[in-house]
Amino acid sequence: MTGSNRFAERLTSENAVFASIDHQTGLLVGCRDIDPTVLKSNILGLAHLARILDLPTVVTSSVATGPNGPVMPEISDTLPDARFIGRDGEINAWDSPEFKRAIEETGRKKIIMAGIVTDVCLMFPAISAVAEGYDVYAVIDASGTWDAAIRDAAVHRMSQAGVKVATWASVLAEIMGDWRSPKGRELGELMSSRLTSYGWVVDGFTAHGAS
Amino acid sequence: MTGSNRFAERLTSENAVFASIDHQTGLLVGCRDIDPTVLKSNILGLAHLARILDLPTVVTSSVATGPNGPVMPEISDTLPDARFIGRDGEINAWDSPEFKRAIEETGRKKIIMAGIVTDVCLMFPAISAVAEGYDVYAVIDASGTWDAAIRDAAVHRMSQAGVKVATWASVLAEIMGDWRSPKGRELGELMSSRLTSYGWVVDGFTAHGAS
Amino acid sequence: MTGSNRFAERLTSENAVFASIDHQTGLLVGCRDIDPTVLKSNILGLAHLARILDLPTVVTSSVATGPNGPVMPEISDTLPDARFIGRDGEINAWDSPEFKRAIEETGRKKIIMAGIVTDVCLMFPAISAVAEGYDVYAVIDASGTWDAAIRDAAVHRMSQAGVKVATWASVLAEIMGDWRSPKGRELGELMSSRLTSYGWVVDGFTAHGAS
Amino acid sequence: MTGSNRFAERLTSENAVFASIDHQTGLLVGCRDIDPTVLKSNILGLAHLARILDLPTVVTSSVATGPNGPVMPEISDTLPDARFIGRDGEINAWDSPEFKRAIEETGRKKIIMAGIVTDVCLMFPAISAVAEGYDVYAVIDASGTWDAAIRDAAVHRMSQAGVKVATWASVLAEIMGDWRSPKGRELGELMSSRLTSYGWVVDGFTAHGAS
Amino acid sequence: MTGSNRFAERLTSENAVFASIDHQTGLLVGCRDIDPTVLKSNILGLAHLARILDLPTVVTSSVATGPNGPVMPEISDTLPDARFIGRDGEINAWDSPEFKRAIEETGRKKIIMAGIVTDVCLMFPAISAVAEGYDVYAVIDASGTWDAAIRDAAVHRMSQAGVKVATWASVLAEIMGDWRSPKGRELGELMSSRLTSYGWVVDGFTAHGAS
Amino acid sequence: MTGSNRFAERLTSENAVFASIDHQTGLLVGCRDIDPTVLKSNILGLAHLARILDLPTVVTSSVATGPNGPVMPEISDTLPDARFIGRDGEINAWDSPEFKRAIEETGRKKIIMAGIVTDVCLMFPAISAVAEGYDVYAVIDASGTWDAAIRDAAVHRMSQAGVKVATWASVLAEIMGDWRSPKGRELGELMSSRLTSYGWVVDGFTAHGAS
Amino acid sequence: MTGSNRFAERLTSENAVFASIDHQTGLLVGCRDIDPTVLKSNILGLAHLARILDLPTVVTSSVATGPNGPVMPEISDTLPDARFIGRDGEINAWDSPEFKRAIEETGRKKIIMAGIVTDVCLMFPAISAVAEGYDVYAVIDASGTWDAAIRDAAVHRMSQAGVKVATWASVLAEIMGDWRSPKGRELGELMSSRLTSYGWVVDGFTAHGAS
Amino acid sequence: MTGSNRFAERLTSENAVFASIDHQTGLLVGCRDIDPTVLKSNILGLAHLARILDLPTVVTSSVATGPNGPVMPEISDTLPDARFIGRDGEINAWDSPEFKRAIEETGRKKIIMAGIVTDVCLMFPAISAVAEGYDVYAVIDASGTWDAAIRDAAVHRMSQAGVKVATWASVLAEIMGDWRSPKGRELGELMSSRLTSYGWVVDGFTAHGAS
Repeated sequence: MTGSNRFAERLTSENAVFASIDHQTGLLVGCRDIDPTVLKSNILGLAHLARILDLPTVVTSSVATGPNGPVMPEISDTLPDARFIGRDGEINAWDSPEFKRAIEETGRKKIIMAGIVTDVCLMFPAISAVAEGYDVYAVIDASGTWDAAIRDAAVHRMSQAGVKVATWASVLAEIMGDWRSPKGRELGELMSSRLTSYGWVVDGFTAHGAS
Repeated sequence: MTGSNRFAERLTSENAVFASIDHQTGLLVGCRDIDPTVLKSNILGLAHLARILDLPTVVTSSVATGPNGPVMPEISDTLPDARFIGRDGEINAWDSPEFKRAIEETGRKKIIMAGIVTDVCLMFPAISAVAEGYDVYAVIDASGTWDAAIRDAAVHRMSQAGVKVATWASVLAEIMGDWRSPKGRELGELMSSRLTSYGWVVDGFTAHGAS
Repeated sequence: MTGSNRFAERLTSENAVFASIDHQTGLLVGCRDIDPTVLKSNILGLAHLARILDLPTVVTSSVATGPNGPVMPEISDTLPDARFIGRDGEINAWDSPEFKRAIEETGRKKIIMAGIVTDVCLMFPAISAVAEGYDVYAVIDASGTWDAAIRDAAVHRMSQAGVKVATWASVLAEIMGDWRSPKGRELGELMSSRLTSYGWVVDGFTAHGAS
Repeated sequence: MTGSNRFAERLTSENAVFASIDHQTGLLVGCRDIDPTVLKSNILGLAHLARILDLPTVVTSSVATGPNGPVMPEISDTLPDARFIGRDGEINAWDSPEFKRAIEETGRKKIIMAGIVTDVCLMFPAISAVAEGYDVYAVIDASGTWDAAIRDAAVHRMSQAGVKVATWASVLAEIMGDWRSPKGRELGELMSSRLTSYGWVVDGFTAHGAS
Repeated sequence: MTGSNRFAERLTSENAVFASIDHQTGLLVGCRDIDPTVLKSNILGLAHLARILDLPTVVTSSVATGPNGPVMPEISDTLPDARFIGRDGEINAWDSPEFKRAIEETGRKKIIMAGIVTDVCLMFPAISAVAEGYDVYAVIDASGTWDAAIRDAAVHRMSQAGVKVATWASVLAEIMGDWRSPKGRELGELMSSRLTSYGWVVDGFTAHGAS
Repeated sequence: MTGSNRFAERLTSENAVFASIDHQTGLLVGCRDIDPTVLKSNILGLAHLARILDLPTVVTSSVATGPNGPVMPEISDTLPDARFIGRDGEINAWDSPEFKRAIEETGRKKIIMAGIVTDVCLMFPAISAVAEGYDVYAVIDASGTWDAAIRDAAVHRMSQAGVKVATWASVLAEIMGDWRSPKGRELGELMSSRLTSYGWVVDGFTAHGAS
Repeated sequence: MTGSNRFAERLTSENAVFASIDHQTGLLVGCRDIDPTVLKSNILGLAHLARILDLPTVVTSSVATGPNGPVMPEISDTLPDARFIGRDGEINAWDSPEFKRAIEETGRKKIIMAGIVTDVCLMFPAISAVAEGYDVYAVIDASGTWDAAIRDAAVHRMSQAGVKVATWASVLAEIMGDWRSPKGRELGELMSSRLTSYGWVVDGFTAHGAS
Repeated sequence: MTGSNRFAERLTSENAVFASIDHQTGLLVGCRDIDPTVLKSNILGLAHLARILDLPTVVTSSVATGPNGPVMPEISDTLPDARFIGRDGEINAWDSPEFKRAIEETGRKKIIMAGIVTDVCLMFPAISAVAEGYDVYAVIDASGTWDAAIRDAAVHRMSQAGVKVATWASVLAEIMGDWRSPKGRELGELMSSRLTSYGWVVDGFTAHGAS
C-alpha cells in the first residue's frame, strides 16, 4: 500500500481480523500506563466488538502454563469460537507459523491488534505484519506496559514503521461507520456500556423519556 | 465519642448503615478527580458490599427529575430493598427529615457515606452527622467531584471536622474483618471482581490449580 | 466557637460576608496551581454569588498603582456596590484598619475569603480573622499561587489554624441550602454557567424537552 | 500538495473554511483530556474567529436527537449563518454527502477542523480530506476525547497521515498574519478575552495608561 | 503519651520493633502509588535496617497459601530470625493474638510498621496499636496500595488518629541519630545502596579519592 | 504557646532566626520533589531575605568533608557573617549542642528553618524545637527530598506535631508586613528577582513608564 | 538538503545564527508548559552561548510598545551587539523583511531559534525557514506557551515539517563538540551555572579538591 | 537500508553490539525524567543482557576524571571484558576515532545504544551512526536527562532521523526471540529480577508449586 490514501482506508467487518496477543493475567498485572479496571474494560470492549461483528479472531498466548498465566478468562468467554494459538516460545507472535497462518487463512489484510506488553507483544508483530503488506491497527488502550514513557516510545517506533496507532473506541467507530448500520444499535450499546461517562449520558437521556 | 479510641472502633455489619447520596447520572458525568469507569466500579463495589452484608441502605437523590438525572440504575438493581428518598430541594441530605429519619431508624451510629459531588453531597451530610455524634466513613473513591484539588480540599475539611476519610476497599476489609468470616468468600470474590489487578492475580492462581 | 459543631455551622446569606483580596492582574498572571481560565471563572462565580445574594462584599487591593496592577475589572463590574479598600502597604489585609472595620461593620462573623496569592493574601488574613473569633471559609479555587506544592502547604497551614478550606461551588451550595430557596433558580443558573460540564448537562436536558 | 513547502503554506481568510464537527453536549461532557471550561472557551474562540473573518463555516452534528445531544448552543448563537448539517448516521462526517458538498461548495482547500471526540469525529474526516488533497488543520485544543493518552495516539495517527495538528490560538495567529491587518484589533481582543492570562496582561497594561 | 513532646520522641534501636505486614507477591503486584522497583528497594531498605540494628522483627502474612501469595522471599532471606506469623484470616494483624503477642513480647512501645495495602494492612493495625498506647511509625514508602489518592486518604486518616506517617529513609536517619554511631558506617552504606542518587554521589566521591 | 492565637502570631525581623540546615551539594543533587533551578533560587531567596533584614542566621552542615559535600557556596557568599556549625555526626541538628546554643543565643523563639532532606534534616529539628516551645516555620520550597510523596508525608508529620509548614515567599511577605516598611523596596526587588513571573510583570510595568 | 545525512550535520560556531523571537515580558508571563524560573535560565543559557561563541544574533520583538511588553532586559544586557528588529505587526518573523534580511546577511544556513509562544512565534518562522532551505533548530525549552499539550502539538507539527526540535543544553553540546575546544571551559561553566544539579556536582567536585 | 522492512529487521546476538555511553555518576545524578532506582536497574538490565549473550560491548566515558565522574562501577563489574574508551573531550562519542573503531571492529551493523544525557550523549552518536548506515536502537529507559520534556524532544528528533527509539525490556525480548532459546531461561530470570512486578508474579507462581 502506498501514498497517503493508505491512511484513509477504512476498517470494515469484511476486511478486518482481530488479534488478541498475550492478554495473560501474569502480564496484565504489570501494566502501569493505564488503570487496570479501564484496561480490562477496553480489552473486553474490543472482544465484544469482534463478537458483535463476527470478526475472525485469533487469540494467542505466550507460555500460558508458566508465570505469564492464562489468557483473561473473559476473552474466551466472550469469543468461544476464536482460533486459539498457544505459543510455547515465540515472543513475536508473527514468528509463530500457526499464528501467522491463522491470520493468513482469514484472507483479511487489516489486523486489529492488541497485546500485553505494548512494546513487545503488540509492537513486534505489528511491525512485522506491516513489513509484509498488512495494514495494522495497534490498539494501545487495549494494550498495556510497565509505564507511560515505555508506551510512548513504542507509539513513536510503531508510527515510524507505518503501523496505525489506534484506540479501541475509534476502531469501533471506524468499523461501525454509521449509527444506522445493521449493528449500529448493538455497537452503540457496547460503547455506552464501556465508555462509562457516555453510558451515564445515555442513562440520563433514557430516564427522561426523551429518546 | 472521645479520645483516640474513636478512631480504632470497627465497622461491623451490625453497626453500619450505607448511605448513597446523589449518585445521579447528570452529576457523575462531571466528575474529573477519578476515572469514570473506576468510579462506577467502586460505587457498585460499595453497593454489592451492602447487599452481601444486608446492610441497611438509604439511597437518596437530589431533584432527580431535573438535569441531575436519575440515580445510577445499577444501584437500585443491586439494592432493590434500599430505602429510597427523593429529595426535591435539600442540598445537604442531612437537612431532609426523611433522609435523617431513615438513618436514625436503622439505630446504627456508623454511616458509610458516598456521594456526588464530594465537596457538597458527601461533605455536608458527613460533617453534619459527625456533629450529632455519628461516626462517618466518607468513602472518597466511591464519590467524585470536578477536579482533584477540590477533592483534596474537601478531604482536609472533613478530616478537620472529625469525619473518617475512607476508601471503598478499606471499608470492605474493615467490615469483613476476617477471610474466614461467614461472608469472607463472597466479599473476597467482590474484591477480585472490582479490584481488577487483584482479580488477575486470583485468575492466575486459580488457573494454575494452586488453590 | 468550640467543639465539633463549629464545623457543622452553615453559611447563610445572613451570616456571611465576601472578601475579595488582591485579585489583581499583575498577581493573577503568576498563578500556576490552577488554569487561568478556570481561576477567572471561579472568581467571577463567587462575585456573582455575592451579587445574587446581596452579600456584603469588601474588595481590597494591594498597591494597585504598582506592578500588582488593578483588580480584575470584571469584579467591580459585577459588584459595583462593594466596599473597595485600596491598601497602600499592608500585605495582610487584616492589618488594614479600613479593611478590618469594613468587615466588622457588616456585623457578620462568617467570612468567605479568596485572594491572590493563596499563601499570603488569603492565608494571612484568614488565620488572623480565625484567631479573633471569625469563622473563615478560604476559597482555594478562587485563589491562586505560584505552584500546587505552595498551595498544598498553605492548605495544611490554614487547616492547622482552624480555617475552613473551601471551594467556590461548595460555598454556593452551602448558602443555597435548597434548590427551592428563593434564589435557587438564579444560583442554579450560576452553577451551570460556571461549572461547564454541568452546563452541558443542563443544555442537553433542556434541548430534549425533558424539563 | 508535495514537498516541504506544503507545511509552510499559510491559512488566510480567503483560503480557509471552518468545520465544527459534533460539538454536542452529550459528547462534550465525556472529554477528559482538557478542562471543560478551557475546552468551551477554545471552541468559542474558533467560532468567534470564523465570525470576525467571515470564514465559510460548516457546523455538523451526529444524531443530535439522541444522547449525543444538541450542538453547544453558543456555536449557533455565534455563527447564525453557518451551514448546519444534521447527520443521522454517518460517524465520519466526510461520508456525509451534504457535509462534503458544503465544504466543496466553499471552493476552499484548507479546512480548520475541530470535533468531539478527537480520535473519531475529528481524526476520521481530517484523514479522509487530506487523502483527497485538502490541507487540514486539526485543532486539538478545540476538540476533546476520553483521556490524554487517546488524544496523543490520535495526534500521532493524524501527523502520520499528513494532517497538520494545530491549536486554536496558533490558527488565529496564522490567519491574522499581522497585528496591523484590518481585523487585527478585533482578533487581538478575541485573543485576550479567551487567553485569560494574556487578558490580564492587557488589563494591567490598559489600567496603567501605558497604551 | 500526651502533649507535643510525644511527637519529638526518638526511635532508637532499643525502643523500636519492626513489623512487616503482608508484603506478599499477590498484593505487591497491585500497588500503583509507587514504582514497583522503588517499593521493593524501600521494603528491603527497612528489612536491612532491622537486620543491621538487630531490631526485633515480626513478619506476618495473610492467607499466604491463597492468591495473596508468599511474603517477598527477600524479606525472610534478609531477616531469617524474624518471628513469622502466618495469619489464616484476620485482616487487621492487631486482631491476631499471635501477632499482638509477638509485638508485646518485645517489650517495645514504638512500632515501625509497613504493609500492603496501605489503607488496610498498614492503616488498621497502626490505628489499633496507637489506640492501645503504642507510638506507631507508618512507613508509607515501604507500603503500597491501588493508587495515590487511596494512599493520601489513608495518610489523612492515620494522621487524624495520631499515627506518625513516616518514610523508610527518615526512619533509618532517626534511629541512626549520628553518623559516628557504632552502626553509622553500615547504615550509611545501606542508604547509598538504596537511595540510588545518593549512591552515585558516594561513588563519585570515592572514585575521586576525596574521602 | 497555646490556643489558636499561636498560629496568628507574626514573624518579624526582631523575633525570627534563620536556620539553613545541610544545604549541601551532595544532598541537593538528590532532590526530586522540586526543580533544582527553582530550589536553588528559593534557598537563595531566603538567604538574601536574612541578609536584607540582618536576621541572625545559623548555617549548619552534616559531615561536609564526606559525600554530602560542601554547603552551597552561594549561601556563605550571601551570609558571610552567619554562624557556621559543621556537625561531624548529629543527623538531627537539634542534637548538636553548638547548633542549639547558636539558636538559643539569638534569644529568638521563632525559627525560619529550611534543610535537605525535608523528611530528616528539616523535619527532625523542626519537631524537636517545637517540643521545646519554639515556633518553627518549616520552609518546604527552600528544602527538598527524594520525591513528592516523601515531602507530603513529612508535611503531614510536621503539621501533626505543631510545626508551621511554610514557603519562602510567604515567609518574606509575613516579615515584610508592609510594602512601605523600611526594607519594603529591597524585599520587593528580592521578590521580583526570585519569583520570575512577578519579575516579568515588574519589567513590563517599568518599561512602559507606568510607575 | 536531502537524505538522512541532513539530520547528522553539526551546528558549529561558523554555520549557526541565533534568533531570539518575541521573548517579551507580556508573553513570557503566559507560559505554563515550563517553570518560569527554568524558562528564564534556559533563555539566558542560549544568550550566553551566543555571546561566548560570538554567534551572529538577531533579536526581534512583536509590537513591544503594547501589552506584549519589552524583550527580557537580560537578553540585550547579555547580547548588546545583537541585531535588534522591532516588528510592528508581522506575527511570523519570517514575514518581516528586516528580520529575514538580518538572517540572510549572516550567510549562515543553520538557525538556532527560540520564541514565545512556541506554537506561533517559534513554529511559524521555523517552518517558513525550513521551506526555504534553512536547517532550523527549534529550542523548545528556551521557548514557552500556554500549556504542555499545545507545546506537544507544535513539536509534532514542526517535526512533520522537517524542523529539528532541540533543547538549549543539547544545542550548546553540539556546538561545543569537544570539552577541549577553545571555548570548552567557558561553555562548561555556562552549563554548570544554568544546569543547577550539574552545578552542584561541579561545586562538590571542586570543594573536595579533586579537580 | 531502505523500505519499511528495515523496521522489521531483528536484533540478534550475532548482529548487535551494545554501546554504554557516559553512564557516569556525575551525570546520572542530574537525571529527572526517570526514577534513579529504576534507571540504575534498567542500565544494569542491559549490561547483564550483554553479558548473558556475550554481546560485544563498548563502554565509553567523557572526561571521567572531572565532575562527570566515573562510569557506574556496576557496569564494569558486570562487563569486565567490555572495550573501555575514555574520551578526553569528544562530546559526540561518534567523533572519537577509538570509539568508532571499536564499534566498526565488531563488524556488527546494529547498535544497542544507551547514554546520559539522552539529548546529547545518546542522541548525537545515534543520529551520526544512522547517517553512516547503522541501525541504532536508542534505549531511552536505560538513558536519562534533565526532565521529561527534554527526553520527549530528543525522542521526536531521533525518530525523525531514522533512529529506532527502544526500551531495555523490548531489546531483551527482541534478541531473546523465543523463551526456548538457549539463553531463554537466563534472560527470563534477568527480566523477573529487573521488572519487579513480573518478578513478584514469578515468585508467587513458584511458591505455589505450579511451575
